[in-house]
This record gives sequence, structure tokens and C-alpha cells, in this order.
Amino acid sequence: MPQDRETRPRVVILGGGFGGLTAAQALRNAAVDVILIDRENHHCFQPLLYQVATAALTPADIAWPIRRVLGRQGNTQVLMAEVKGVDLDRRRVRTSARDFTYDVLVVATGATHTYFGHDDWAAHAPGLKRIEDATAIRRRILMAFERAEIAADPARRQALTTFAVVGGGPTGVEMAGAIADVARDALPPDFKNVDPAKARILLIEAGPRILPAFPERLSAVAEAALRRMGVEVRSGAAVTGIDREGVQLGDERIAAGAVIWAAGVQASPAANWLGAASDRAGRVLVEPDLTLPGHPEVFVIGDTAAIADPAGKPVPGVAPAAKQMGAYVGRRIAARLAGAKPTAPFRYRHQGDLATIGRKSAIVKLGGLTLTGFAGWTFWSLAHVYFLIGVRNRLAVAFSWLWDYVTYAPRSRLITNPARG
Amino acid sequence: MPQDRETRPRVVILGGGFGGLTAAQALRNAAVDVILIDRENHHCFQPLLYQVATAALTPADIAWPIRRVLGRQGNTQVLMAEVKGVDLDRRRVRTSARDFTYDVLVVATGATHTYFGHDDWAAHAPGLKRIEDATAIRRRILMAFERAEIAADPARRQALTTFAVVGGGPTGVEMAGAIADVARDALPPDFKNVDPAKARILLIEAGPRILPAFPERLSAVAEAALRRMGVEVRSGAAVTGIDREGVQLGDERIAAGAVIWAAGVQASPAANWLGAASDRAGRVLVEPDLTLPGHPEVFVIGDTAAIADPAGKPVPGVAPAAKQMGAYVGRRIAARLAGAKPTAPFRYRHQGDLATIGRKSAIVKLGGLTLTGFAGWTFWSLAHVYFLIGVRNRLAVAFSWLWDYVTYAPRSRLITNPARG
Repeated sequence: MPQDRETRPRVVILGGGFGGLTAAQALRNAAVDVILIDRENHHCFQPLLYQVATAALTPADIAWPIRRVLGRQGNTQVLMAEVKGVDLDRRRVRTSARDFTYDVLVVATGATHTYFGHDDWAAHAPGLKRIEDATAIRRRILMAFERAEIAADPARRQALTTFAVVGGGPTGVEMAGAIADVARDALPPDFKNVDPAKARILLIEAGPRILPAFPERLSAVAEAALRRMGVEVRSGAAVTGIDREGVQLGDERIAAGAVIWAAGVQASPAANWLGAASDRAGRVLVEPDLTLPGHPEVFVIGDTAAIADPAGKPVPGVAPAAKQMGAYVGRRIAARLAGAKPTAPFRYRHQGDLATIGRKSAIVKLGGLTLTGFAGWTFWSLAHVYFLIGVRNRLAVAFSWLWDYVTYAPRSRLITNPARG
Repeated sequence: MPQDRETRPRVVILGGGFGGLTAAQALRNAAVDVILIDRENHHCFQPLLYQVATAALTPADIAWPIRRVLGRQGNTQVLMAEVKGVDLDRRRVRTSARDFTYDVLVVATGATHTYFGHDDWAAHAPGLKRIEDATAIRRRILMAFERAEIAADPARRQALTTFAVVGGGPTGVEMAGAIADVARDALPPDFKNVDPAKARILLIEAGPRILPAFPERLSAVAEAALRRMGVEVRSGAAVTGIDREGVQLGDERIAAGAVIWAAGVQASPAANWLGAASDRAGRVLVEPDLTLPGHPEVFVIGDTAAIADPAGKPVPGVAPAAKQMGAYVGRRIAARLAGAKPTAPFRYRHQGDLATIGRKSAIVKLGGLTLTGFAGWTFWSLAHVYFLIGVRNRLAVAFSWLWDYVTYAPRSRLITNPARG
């Protein structure tokens, strides 16, 4: 037996996102030693990343050190390292720092964006998954206005103040709305040579309509709200090229100061580490109890797992799904150790769909209830502040939002690393 | 005459630090067009940078977009570009974006750190002048604890939790005290394998005592306060080498998880741009009215200017001095345009010296008044919150400090860009 083994069973959790964190918390009182490994030191509240990308919130408002969240949990260690692979036979995880043996493994390493084979687009159109992605997008958007302000040529100013958001899901809708807000309301008084309110903002969706997960009526409501904010919604438009200067839509060339990628999602390479079968998005095909086929000691959860809900629809890659899986797995591990019989399979309960459109409007679908406009926005705000980790962050975010709502003054307009812009 | 000239005289200000910003504000009502150029989009409140470096404040707490500060000032444009040179004969500034002619030029480009000819030390011992420096230091300090937590070897843990601050001026004293605070009070509950409270913190000063600008008695008070916090003060110790793994003090080798440079300051390359005489720190030797000799249309202010106070002592490179120079130059430009006779030469009024030692102690010398301990800290806090730009930042900083004081929980413990750590 390796030297670093303890006498209690060791649960190694890979990833400190919604799934991994919830699994660790669910094991709080279990007779196990938990090791949670993440390549970042912070949990990131991804649903609000777009507000960091548009300078409404600072990174510290939506990110929280994982060891702070779990620090008081006596049976849990938090370690920062990058996963390099898994040896299923020897029950060992290889990381950038050292190797760890496990009795139970929970893989919750999330997803990243994919450019559908066009990896060269990544350099020109950052996606939105990590804090660093958000600050990179913020830098590009703010730098575009700075470059326009100093540019002598009006055509160049127009090109620089054009923003293309690729992908009409909730993230793309939120990004387009938030860019419109910052350009129309926050920036204009501070610029002399360019009018940020005249910025051109495009939301490009390859499918026939934006927000395809919502009922058609709500898609139409969202599209109308975006158009009122001056966003050009281009459905049925496939991006055929992205470069430093803009995007290509078939024959149409759109010069842009910043392009934001909100189109494709790809699971982390867990399927490779585990030598497991995966779906097209790279998600591991798991058993009904979220274990790896043939390996009851390995669970795969969150955006890295492919599983259907009771109605046969794929469970979506959203925070509530990851948290439900994390809680299920934590309970199941604790029960198994206590000698309980196998519990029921994982059942996803869909709580609803939300998408916000700028600072005053949102669409919400909760079972039979639908909310639109300001009522939807209010619901959305309360829900997000409520779910944020840590009372300090709740206060800080609530304070930021209220302040900005009153003053129209996003506070976090810092361009860091301009040379990398 | 170049096409971009306006009919009103144009004042070009290089740099949006304390000097440049104050000069621009002093020209608010003058019949001039002001162009302020900075390579960053934000003014940085440098006296609190060390709190960003130790995770007590976030970058947005102490930085503010320059165009936000000056946006409502009708005669002023803010442009983001890097200065490349000055053509004194043609009265032209070359920048990374385009060239600008001027009638009056104000050079306020500040200072950076110098490694006294050891440029290879820069990669291993970041200094503290810009927001990016502070986040780089924060990353190193937090990463050192993360690496220690995951390290298997006790000797390696001890080395990683050793921090060396080079330079015993106010910045070095503040950094050492703040590292001790975060290590002793904030981090311990969150770590399992390493005890951050046992971190070794060294403050290394080549001269005979720390804080040489203060009276000897106050230096001794500060040193005693640091020792009580567990900081090893090493006066009369010259650093002879710095590398990835630590520092060399003559024959003594100190392995360290992070080395912070607070020793040398070097003016921006303004003397080169202007072909001007400079002192050993690269500061331009200016006339008593802060103009460049032979060029009454060019002013040099702040950390970039070398001038003596009425008593013959060099004016120190501190924020109040830069602000006084900026205000003087703004008034002088306005008066000159109004046809007034030359005003009196610039006279520096020294307001006092402050240095804070951790979260509960500071030393303050204001003329005959000296404050130490908690009284000094209270004065220091009030003074700094008061001078912060923007009511939002004042509230946010006050809130952060109060919160952290009550909870011992620095909120901004994010490691961004870990790969660059």
C-alpha cells in the first residue's frame, strides 16, 4: 500500500466547480478523508462571468478561494494542481504536483469552449468559462473603445466599435445585452471623439432562433428586447471565419473591435483520462448512478457527464444540474460506506430556465410560470445573489448592482495587461 | 501648421498619476485644450498597492479609469497610448498610436523600480508600482502557500513559506507587515498540511536602519512593532543575488517562496525623450518653476523631476509632492495664458511622513506631531480613505477594511494566471 494512504477511505474530487464543491460539502460528516484538487485556487460563479467581462463586477465579486469555502471542513484538504491523468487499475491520479491514490474518485472537471475544429479562432474570439476569460474579454471591449477614441480615421472608429457575439444561447444573449448596456449607458459621458452609444452590437446565431432551449414565444420576447436595446440579432447566420479584424459570415465581412465566442461547449478531457466512451461533446457516458461503467468507485458529474433526465432529454450543462449530481454522489458515497443498499438512480429535477437581457429585462421559465421584462430581471437578480457563495460576496454583489443601477457607473473598468489586448 | 491643431492652445500632459491628474484638474477652467495621455486606462492609488499585493483589496478598489475622473471636464481629452519620444523643436510627442503637437507639455510619467544593474533579478523579485505588479506579487505569495500545502517534503514547505522583502523604506515595511498579517491571521484556518502562521518573513535593508527618512526613535518603534509581528528585520544586509529559489546575502543563502523588491526607484525615461540632464535616479533637473532649462513650454513634475525644497533637501517621490507640482503647473499655465507675470517658484510643503505596520499599527510624523501604534494606524486609515479618488472607491475601501478587520478574511485571494506564477 502506498505510504500516503490514511486508514479512512480517501475520496479524491477533481474540480472545485459547482459539482465538486457540492460533493465535498455533502461528505462533510462522512467517515472519509476528502482531497479536492483544482488547477485554480478559486471557485468561480460562472453564471455571472459575463458581468465581469462587461466591467459591472470585479473578479473578486464572483470568485471565492476554494480552501476558504471548505477550510473549516475538518475531513477535507484542498490542493491546487493540474490533473494529468488517471490510472484506474492502481487507483491513482497523476497531477502536476504529485500523485494521489484514491478509494473513490469523483471527476467534476467541467467543460471549456470549443471552436468546432477552428482552433485558430480561439486567439481572436475568447470564450467565457474562467475568470481569466472574462478579464480578457473586458480588456478587448474596453481597449476597442480606447483605440477608437484615439483613431484619426472615422471608418476605423466604426470598425473598432463593432462587437460580434457568436452564439445565441443564454451566454451570448447575456453578453450582447450587457455590452449594449455598458456602451449606451455607462461609457458615453467619458468619451470625446467617439460615441459609444453608437456602437454596433451583433448577436450571431447559426440556428433559426436565439435561445432554442426556451419556448418560441420567449425567444421572440428576448429578441424583441435585444432589438430595442440596439442589438442586431442575426439568426440563421453561420460564421465561416474569424480573424484579428473581425468575422466572416459567408460572403459578408464584418470588421469588429472585439469578437466574443459563446457558441460551442466541450467537456474537459476526462474521457481520455478514464479511457471512457463519450458523446460528441466529449462528455463521459455514465451509468444511471453516475459511475463509470465497470468502475463503481469512479463517479463523473457535472458538465463532464452525459446522462438523460427521467423524460429522456439530456441533462443540460447548468449549475443546478452539477449541484444536484454533486449532492447525489456525496450522499451515495456516505451511504455505501455505511453499508446501505444501492440507492435510487440519479434523477435530474429541472428547476427552470433563465436568461437576462441587459440590466432591466430577463426571461424566466419555471415549470408553468413564465416571467419577462423587469419582473423576470428582479427574479433573476434575487436568485443569483442568493446562490452566490459567501455572505461577503452576496453583500458585495448586491451593493455593486444597486450602486451601478443608481449611477450607471460600472466600477470595474480596468484594462489590465494592455499589451496582451 | 499640422491639421490637428485647434485654435486654443493645446496642453499635452503625459501621465495620469497624481501629478498629471492634478495638473489636468487645475486647468479645468483655463482657455486651453488638454490632452492627457497614459499607457494605462486607469489612475492607480499607489500608496495602497501593497494591500492589493497582499489580497486585502481588489485592483478595482484602488484604481479608477482616468477618463472617468476627467470625463466631465469639457476641455480635456483622455487618450490611451504609450509615449515613444518628444520632438522639442517641432513641439511634437510621438506615441504608439499617433503623434500630437503641443503648445505646452507637462511630463508626469512617474518612476519605476530599478535593480541597480541586476536586471536579471526583475524576473524573480517583482517591484510594486502598477496594478499588474501587485497582482503578480499576490499570485506569488498565494502560490507559495499553495505549493507548500501540496509539497511532501517538510524542508521544501519551510522554504516555500519564507518571504523576503528587499528594501526597508515605507513600501518594504508595509509589505512585510501585510504579509505577516495575512499569514498569521487570515490563512491558517484554511490550510491543513502547512501552518501559514509559521511563515518566515524577512525585511532586508542594506542601510543601518529601516525607514531612514524618519527620526531614529520612530524607526526603532517600527522595527519593534515588526519584530512583535514575527518579522525578522535584517538591517545592514546587502543582497548580492536573487534567483528563482531565493536570495543571497553575502555568504548566507535564504531559500524563499517569494521575493519582493522594494529597494530602488528609477524615473521614467523622460530625460532621454527630452535630451535633458538628470540626476542618478534619472530624474530631470528642472528650473525652480519646474520647466525644462531653455524650454519654458515644457514642465516636468512628480517622480520624474529632481528639485530641492526650500531647505535645500530633495523633494521626495511621494504622492503629495506630485500633486503639489501638478497644481502649481496648472495654475502657472493658466496664469501665463492670462498674461500674468511669472509667479513665484515652486515651493514644496512637506506634510509629513507615514508608514503603516500591519493592520493595527503605524508611525506618523507631521511636523512636531508624532503618532505611533493604533493611533497612528487610525490616522493613516482615515487619511488614505479620504484621499482615494471617487466616492464609490472610498465606500468600497472603507467597507473592505472594516469587514476584514472584523472577520480577518481578506477577500481578494484570487490567483490569476497561475501558469505565470
